[in-house]
Amino acid sequence: MFKSQLKAISSRIQRQFDDIFSELDVVSVTQAMAYATNGGKRLRGFLVVEGARLHGINIETAIWPATAVECIHAYSLIHDDLPSMDNDDMRRGQPTIHVKWDEATAILAGDALQALAFDLVSRHEVGSGEIRANLVSSLAKASGADGMVLGQALDISAETSQKKLTFEDITLLQQKKTGALIQWAATAGARLAGSDPTALTKFSNALGLAFQIADDILDVEGDIDLVGKAVGKDGEAGKATFVSLLGLKEAKRRAKELVNEACEALKEYGEKGENLRQAAHFVIQRES
Amino acid sequence: MFKSQLKAISSRIQRQFDDIFSELDVVSVTQAMAYATNGGKRLRGFLVVEGARLHGINIETAIWPATAVECIHAYSLIHDDLPSMDNDDMRRGQPTIHVKWDEATAILAGDALQALAFDLVSRHEVGSGEIRANLVSSLAKASGADGMVLGQALDISAETSQKKLTFEDITLLQQKKTGALIQWAATAGARLAGSDPTALTKFSNALGLAFQIADDILDVEGDIDLVGKAVGKDGEAGKATFVSLLGLKEAKRRAKELVNEACEALKEYGEKGENLRQAAHFVIQRES
Repeated sequence: MFKSQLKAISSRIQRQFDDIFSELDVVSVTQAMAYATNGGKRLRGFLVVEGARLHGINIETAIWPATAVECIHAYSLIHDDLPSMDNDDMRRGQPTIHVKWDEATAILAGDALQALAFDLVSRHEVGSGEIRANLVSSLAKASGADGMVLGQALDISAETSQKKLTFEDITLLQQKKTGALIQWAATAGARLAGSDPTALTKFSNALGLAFQIADDILDVEGDIDLVGKAVGKDGEAGKATFVSLLGLKEAKRRAKELVNEACEALKEYGEKGENLRQAAHFVIQRES
Repeated sequence: MFKSQLKAISSRIQRQFDDIFSELDVVSVTQAMAYATNGGKRLRGFLVVEGARLHGINIETAIWPATAVECIHAYSLIHDDLPSMDNDDMRRGQPTIHVKWDEATAILAGDALQALAFDLVSRHEVGSGEIRANLVSSLAKASGADGMVLGQALDISAETSQKKLTFEDITLLQQKKTGALIQWAATAGARLAGSDPTALTKFSNALGLAFQIADDILDVEGDIDLVGKAVGKDGEAGKATFVSLLGLKEAKRRAKELVNEACEALKEYGEKGENLRQAAHFVIQRES
């Protein structure tokens, strides 16, 4: 049920991207934007659509913020893969943008994807002006210097710092780097409906952390062919991760505990929350 | 009158930035954001505030979109200066971000400034939800793959292309690269008031083109100490510019003609448009 729903939502997002990119001039930057948004799990977009469904908002409305959050996610990956950042040649089993095109195209495609995200959440189809402005404001905060970008900055400074990160440091870093956007995605549906996002906030905080612990586990245990990008990089770089700090066994236990917490937070939605509960379990069982 | 007003608005924008950055964690990325937004002419912010005044909107409201447009402008300069883009070491007489810090910090500071721009225009102080969403939507379009980023992409592809650009090519390129954001700035006041932006659109289209012709003239005639960045680069690179296509004399004549067009467009505002008229004259007389 979850897997077929994830697939259906992912296809719907792809159709949305196809429409959007067909309206733009064909230059290397727009080609790179289409390439970078094509593929991936689209878990963030799924969270938007499912969170919206729990609040009675249909996919034709939710598709806009769902596509927007995938734009932000894609832009962050493009910039993160650049030589001066993580310097990754492969992503989702394909050459990264700066390898397939060049660095300038990668920088500009990322920049344009960020702008596109704000274009999409502010479209008339999304709802009242108040709701659109609220989605923009929260997305900007989740993406910016107190959200995702801060997380990336902390991550980079950790790499060059002498001081090893503590568990608390890594938790904060990850809450910013991946957690803030996951939280925005999971709560966007409540914002669309003008409803209270508390339950979905709790759900997504636990989910975001479980997601990152699972990522660290994949970096140790993952199969490069399935993960689609380099693995074992963190260990080689001597980087503190949840696995290096907790040990593999404890990291797995903690991830499972967080998934249970996430599911617990959905109690008030009853049966309707089943897809999101399955998504939480998927997050720590995935192979990529 | 114009010069003292430009200075007053610039100081007000600086105070706004000081407040905003004092609320962010002090990491190299936020320091770089403050550094990159400190200085410059702030002509775009001035256009927002003056355009707003023409529509009865005071500076305490207009300061938010004025600061936002300066964020977008600053981010575009940071990314444009990167080694894989224009590779400039100096900007406003100071080392560029990737020189003073490093490339990763420059990429992230630019990314966070873009997010901050959308945070600022969507704040409650700006107006109704409808007005805020309208400002976001138009700013996203002016900045993105059909606006500023498209202009930069066309500029980069022109540098590697065999084919020399025509006058029409350069006009389109510049309308996107600098014109779209200048137009947004000049029309934001009308949007804030929910009024018709037609006159300010005409004004800013002429102004934007005059601005770029003046930039090309400065690249040929400018004093490096006043311009604050490398000059003569375009000529050395064999790049087609308004000056190389029109000749210096005709470029100056055309710039003056455009300034007259810009002033003409302000007729309906009478005396109240005087600051903007002086701004248009300043654009082609400036030394930096």
